[in-house]
Amino acid sequence: MSVTAAKGFQASGIAAGIKENGNPDLALVVNTGPRLAAAGVFTSNRVKAAPVLWSEQVLKGGQVSAVILNSGGANACTGPKGFQDTHATAEKVADVLGHNAAEVAVASTGLIGLLLPMGKLLPGVETAAAQLSEHGGEKAAIAIKTTDSVHKTSVVTKDGWTVGGMAKGAGMLAPGLATMLVVLTTDADLEADVLDKALRAATKVTFDRVDSDGCMSTNDTVLLLASGASEVTPEYEEFAAAVHTVCDDLGQQLIRDAEGASKDIEVEVVNAATEDDAVEVGRSIARNNLLKCAIHGEDPNWGRVLSAIGTTAAAFEPDQLNVAINGVWVCKNGGVGEDRDKVDMRYREVRITADLAAGNESAVIWTNDLTADYVHENSAYSS
Amino acid sequence: MSVTAAKGFQASGIAAGIKENGNPDLALVVNTGPRLAAAGVFTSNRVKAAPVLWSEQVLKGGQVSAVILNSGGANACTGPKGFQDTHATAEKVADVLGHNAAEVAVASTGLIGLLLPMGKLLPGVETAAAQLSEHGGEKAAIAIKTTDSVHKTSVVTKDGWTVGGMAKGAGMLAPGLATMLVVLTTDADLEADVLDKALRAATKVTFDRVDSDGCMSTNDTVLLLASGASEVTPEYEEFAAAVHTVCDDLGQQLIRDAEGASKDIEVEVVNAATEDDAVEVGRSIARNNLLKCAIHGEDPNWGRVLSAIGTTAAAFEPDQLNVAINGVWVCKNGGVGEDRDKVDMRYREVRITADLAAGNESAVIWTNDLTADYVHENSAYSS
Repeated sequence: MSVTAAKGFQASGIAAGIKENGNPDLALVVNTGPRLAAAGVFTSNRVKAAPVLWSEQVLKGGQVSAVILNSGGANACTGPKGFQDTHATAEKVADVLGHNAAEVAVASTGLIGLLLPMGKLLPGVETAAAQLSEHGGEKAAIAIKTTDSVHKTSVVTKDGWTVGGMAKGAGMLAPGLATMLVVLTTDADLEADVLDKALRAATKVTFDRVDSDGCMSTNDTVLLLASGASEVTPEYEEFAAAVHTVCDDLGQQLIRDAEGASKDIEVEVVNAATEDDAVEVGRSIARNNLLKCAIHGEDPNWGRVLSAIGTTAAAFEPDQLNVAINGVWVCKNGGVGEDRDKVDMRYREVRITADLAAGNESAVIWTNDLTADYVHENSAYSS
Repeated sequence: MSVTAAKGFQASGIAAGIKENGNPDLALVVNTGPRLAAAGVFTSNRVKAAPVLWSEQVLKGGQVSAVILNSGGANACTGPKGFQDTHATAEKVADVLGHNAAEVAVASTGLIGLLLPMGKLLPGVETAAAQLSEHGGEKAAIAIKTTDSVHKTSVVTKDGWTVGGMAKGAGMLAPGLATMLVVLTTDADLEADVLDKALRAATKVTFDRVDSDGCMSTNDTVLLLASGASEVTPEYEEFAAAVHTVCDDLGQQLIRDAEGASKDIEVEVVNAATEDDAVEVGRSIARNNLLKCAIHGEDPNWGRVLSAIGTTAAAFEPDQLNVAINGVWVCKNGGVGEDRDKVDMRYREVRITADLAAGNESAVIWTNDLTADYVHENSAYSS
């Protein structure tokens, strides 16, 4: 279903030969209208891939007729030639579909620092266009995978309208978005500024709070396209809730597929003075390598949680901190709490609750454990 | 030689039974004067262990007659009882030696969140005092080891005076100091304020720039004690240089003994607008798990260096960045540079040079690779 669950969209996914192993590597998503409204959110990394620089410009117009996405190469740190390649890809899509290149978004994912094989990619655009289908969403989702073990899609259908989408991402997951490409589509009849508001509200508390390994990508792209084909204009709150649900679902799928992970960890920070404090503390806990190793070893090592909290500027008193692991308050008032042997860590899901005793705000950050498999996978990625 | 290389110091290291495996776990360093001047630098973690809270108070007086250090337990997050235990330890040392407890510094290292076995520690103080010797520096250095594979000492002797020291630390190494205990001694005849100035200047560019795993400890302590026994008062610059040399040497020993590491990585940031920019960029590179895995895999993955630089607020233009790995400029002007196959990564030492092309300042951060051995060691530490 994916990006073609909503009416007014076609998609395809093919193997253009960008990946040497012959796996699918090129996806095309086309908005057949009647509306071409769109919004986008991009990586906050200052080193941005060529397709991000291109698509940021495209999105300023608030209209996107097509999105072309490739795996097998990030086209990041590739200089003027890389940008020319992105531009040529958009022109090729526009040429084949009879669109305007200024309304064609481009997204790429894969290794940084390599030019794309344009001699394969450009003919691939023709093949992808020829295979466009209202049932092509799954194939598109498959074609954007890199180290993902599964493809990720999500759909919410409401009263006469739908929001659906696809995502890829398994490593380099950190805020300012996770390393990922996401395309969401809807047949709701909405203007670009409404899409933008709903998308930013949703990503701020979903993708932005997934922090697998603290590494921020050069290529993160989240697009939301509206075709208006349902001829329904939902209330903003209802629409925003649907976008949030799809983003949240895709974000959960990303963290569950994180490279090498054996534990999914929900870091919940409660009773913070501000939401920003809660997020800062949550991220600090989620990024603590020693803690992530301990969780891998099924060791409820709450001292590492406290040492992570202590590095933040959040409001708290060290002797008022409480920490629960899987519901057992192993740390109370900054010291030893309930018996750590009561903590059952046999299951994949782990919840760490940090009570700052400083207010009423809260936030959840999603992360995973640090494993030897993560090291192996990322030691060998480009070789 | 360690802490007893300088005249006017005695030390010992014994097995008090704090560690269940029977290894040495209690060290005592005594300044026999005539001067008792001292300076200290402590963790900037807001969650501070009881001995840190105690020793910070002791150091405010500028006089330290003895330092008692235990491994086998950090006495962090142990509440009022933990602080009472630290106090009792200092009182015991003072009682046995005929000193003033307000001049006895305490340092602990080991697992967070466990009370120390005072029934073993206090009798151990008597044993340690009985074994004090002008040749006890090595034994003291051995007794403070936790996961360290070797003990660490360093000595610089100048014209009639000496600076020597010992250090422990192998994980949780990050600025605001590395996780470590360090005791430096000198027989130079200097006031506490001079010691403080020289110690802060040295730690800022040595221990503070060692970043093994980004995790900041609750127990970091660096002390510098002066006995005045040489009756020589060196020039400040000469003394500061000697302290720097010893700190730098010990810092290098710490990073070379980092848990599970197979590569020692020197991250050199050059042509930064400010020294702070250089340090920020260096730390971001040093903490990038994906890059650390790539280095482990002997993969000169410079894209991960650029993506780490891009997350900082330092002054630079993405298309002017240059990166060398082991002297090969694999990234030029933000894009592909020399052939990455020219990079020889067979050796343990790896140098990453990031040229920000934004000024004339520079800094070096020391780190290591991320390995499966690190994961294994830190998955099983407390169990």
